[in-house]
Amino acid sequence: MVVGTMAERWTNTALLVIDMQNDFIEEGSVTQVKGGKAIVHNVIRVVELARQRGVLVVWDKRFLLSVLKVVREHDPQGRDVEIFRRHHYRSEKVGPVVKGTLGSKLVDGLNIREEEDYKIVKTRFSAFFGTHLHSFLQTSGVTKLVIAGVQTPNCIRQTVFDAVELDYPDVTVIVDATAAATPEIHTANILDMRNIGVKTPTLHEWSEEFA
Amino acid sequence: MVVGTMAERWTNTALLVIDMQNDFIEEGSVTQVKGGKAIVHNVIRVVELARQRGVLVVWDKRFLLSVLKVVREHDPQGRDVEIFRRHHYRSEKVGPVVKGTLGSKLVDGLNIREEEDYKIVKTRFSAFFGTHLHSFLQTSGVTKLVIAGVQTPNCIRQTVFDAVELDYPDVTVIVDATAAATPEIHTANILDMRNIGVKTPTLHEWSEEFA
Repeated sequence: MVVGTMAERWTNTALLVIDMQNDFIEEGSVTQVKGGKAIVHNVIRVVELARQRGVLVVWDKRFLLSVLKVVREHDPQGRDVEIFRRHHYRSEKVGPVVKGTLGSKLVDGLNIREEEDYKIVKTRFSAFFGTHLHSFLQTSGVTKLVIAGVQTPNCIRQTVFDAVELDYPDVTVIVDATAAATPEIHTANILDMRNIGVKTPTLHEWSEEFA
Repeated sequence: MVVGTMAERWTNTALLVIDMQNDFIEEGSVTQVKGGKAIVHNVIRVVELARQRGVLVVWDKRFLLSVLKVVREHDPQGRDVEIFRRHHYRSEKVGPVVKGTLGSKLVDGLNIREEEDYKIVKTRFSAFFGTHLHSFLQTSGVTKLVIAGVQTPNCIRQTVFDAVELDYPDVTVIVDATAAATPEIHTANILDMRNIGVKTPTLHEWSEEFA
């Protein structure tokens, strides 16, 4: 049975969409990820697919797939920012991803559904560092993670390595729904993650899984 | 020099005001702490004193005292709540301290000053559990903690024990600006904390320090 197989495949899976905020994507921001803009369309598609698969949650009354938006929100004075970035918060200009600013909003096309999605605010690279993400996933029964967003060498990779170290048995990074400053950096990091057992399908390959 | 001494005393000190939210204080909430209402006035006074001492921050350009409001904010469906409390979120009624509700707001008289205060959102007892509090305090140079709020056996004590285990050398609990369901529970827990080196002055004693 196709539905049964698909339901089983997506049981206990959470999608983490990481840092897809204006200040990491749009031109003119000091924290812009050069490769970010090009993947927005694919990230939107990943979320759509996740929601389609997640519809079974309600229907089946089981926890199948939850979309998690992981975002940064920083203090206007930069008091919770990494030391190497604090100088961005010392001038008259508003610093990157300050809570409540336009720069901290998700890019156009990505929207939180308050009812079903869950938001994690982080202040460092890894979505697990200084957050209750692991606690939340554990009591929700999540064992499988799918990851999209920016940027590959920092927030994506740190989140992935932490997930592996925390013994999540099934970690997937969508290779063309993640991005870095250059294709070379992106590819080098994807290779390192593949070498620790992480799956790195394309959006197309992932969309075909149990379709 | 009085000012010099006072400045030195309060350098690198942070005040943590814990869970002083309507759903923990006001009548009729399932999570009301019986002794909470009686200490509201004292907690307000602790914050006022902290701010007075903290005024030196600006004047002296040093980090002297920061008021930290530690609050709970939960998912409407209770997906990030302790397992033993999740039943409160399964009925038609809105569960305790759901983000954005009146119940999650600070009690009357306690107000965040966006410019100088810092807000930590937690989902468990300890203000250190699954939060970036320790990271924030460390890079802010904070070594001394002063704690007020509710309730003594849970959020206060867990925060205090974590602070001691994390080697904060100077931890103070204001004995009459913290509260539990009964005076007996409060007193028993205060004793346990005193026995691990925590200072437990009254508001009056604390207000006299280097006054």
